[in-house]
Amino acid sequence: MNKKAVVLLSGGLDSATALYFAKAKGYKTSCLVFDYGQKHKKEIIRAKKIAKLSGSPCRVVNFRLPWKGSSLIDKTKRIPERGIAEISSVAFPDGILPSTYVPARNTIFLSFALSMAETIKAQAIFIGANALDFSGYPDCRPKYFRAWANLVKSLGLSSGNKNIKIIAPLVRMTKAQIIRLGRRLGVPYRLTWSCYAGGKTPCMKCDSCKLRQKGFRELKLHDPIFKNL
Amino acid sequence: MNKKAVVLLSGGLDSATALYFAKAKGYKTSCLVFDYGQKHKKEIIRAKKIAKLSGSPCRVVNFRLPWKGSSLIDKTKRIPERGIAEISSVAFPDGILPSTYVPARNTIFLSFALSMAETIKAQAIFIGANALDFSGYPDCRPKYFRAWANLVKSLGLSSGNKNIKIIAPLVRMTKAQIIRLGRRLGVPYRLTWSCYAGGKTPCMKCDSCKLRQKGFRELKLHDPIFKNL
Repeated sequence: MNKKAVVLLSGGLDSATALYFAKAKGYKTSCLVFDYGQKHKKEIIRAKKIAKLSGSPCRVVNFRLPWKGSSLIDKTKRIPERGIAEISSVAFPDGILPSTYVPARNTIFLSFALSMAETIKAQAIFIGANALDFSGYPDCRPKYFRAWANLVKSLGLSSGNKNIKIIAPLVRMTKAQIIRLGRRLGVPYRLTWSCYAGGKTPCMKCDSCKLRQKGFRELKLHDPIFKNL
Repeated sequence: MNKKAVVLLSGGLDSATALYFAKAKGYKTSCLVFDYGQKHKKEIIRAKKIAKLSGSPCRVVNFRLPWKGSSLIDKTKRIPERGIAEISSVAFPDGILPSTYVPARNTIFLSFALSMAETIKAQAIFIGANALDFSGYPDCRPKYFRAWANLVKSLGLSSGNKNIKIIAPLVRMTKAQIIRLGRRLGVPYRLTWSCYAGGKTPCMKCDSCKLRQKGFRELKLHDPIFKNL
């Protein structure tokens, strides 16, 4: 097992699936978690647990954006609640960004992942982004990841890992397809945390809760998170 | 004056010149400074002074890389000293990176700048990188900045600043050309700090000191930094 990968891990359902996918592909995985002022620490705690359970070392990068702009990190803004019909990919054409969008978040995350990959000489970076059952963020779409591949290539890195690949294995999957894949891979979904709010139980009102619920419902499965509360 | 720009400011000679260049082009400038564990705080203090003198607001992003790899931020590594002949661009072909290289540093810096530009609705990001009299870093070359332009385009940003431009005005200039331009623009070079070490006076041994010295010498000028000590 010589291949190494950096996996961006948020504690949510998608990134946990990406982690187990990378492991199944034979990568020796190292996780990268961000503490960037999320309104709750729950997802960070869960991310660390998932990394540990998967046998992957875990690094945490800590930063704060000294500018406001997202309801996810701005304490003065409420996280929106929407109907399920509004949270499919067609609901967010270019021009409307949901308030939970954190400007350039995935770009920041991937740039740190690139720094880590260069340092530990990893050949790949895995990110659990997907562009079907998603919140409409522009930095989750296939063309964005293609542009990233091009950026990495432009660096002509020479430290033994010339071709660091950016792999977004879930980018064209629905939430149900992701869950089906993850169950096959043994992802501990009971430990994952998707809710944007940090209550004792998932709020079941935010985009993230609704997308998760939609996925399990389509598969006629109970979400194991409720067994773990 | 409606155009806004984010300027990456390090406290060094190049980024200060980029700042005054952006102002001369009619941009309302906001500076972005990083505290990322540099061995000394001198450049951060100078950056703030330069921003203030130029009338630009200044934000500081604070982060640490939880992995080692560069003599610039790793206290156990010495900053190398080299002869002037070794620090021209031909001395670092692909395959050899100087120990002062911080993995993915400009990628991380630009990703935060992108986040700030999206938030304050700036149309441009200025970076003082240059690829002639430089330390051979792969993230200072024209093709890297072209790849960044492509990445930003892929986002199809829709928040009123669809075309955030990445502008590296000095990328093809020698140090002497940069200083000549900066003097015309009124850059306060006495306040800039280039030395990788953080002594009372510049060490005159590191790459950065030598490149700076070379620039002033070619113009037969005294470096005003020595008047300010």
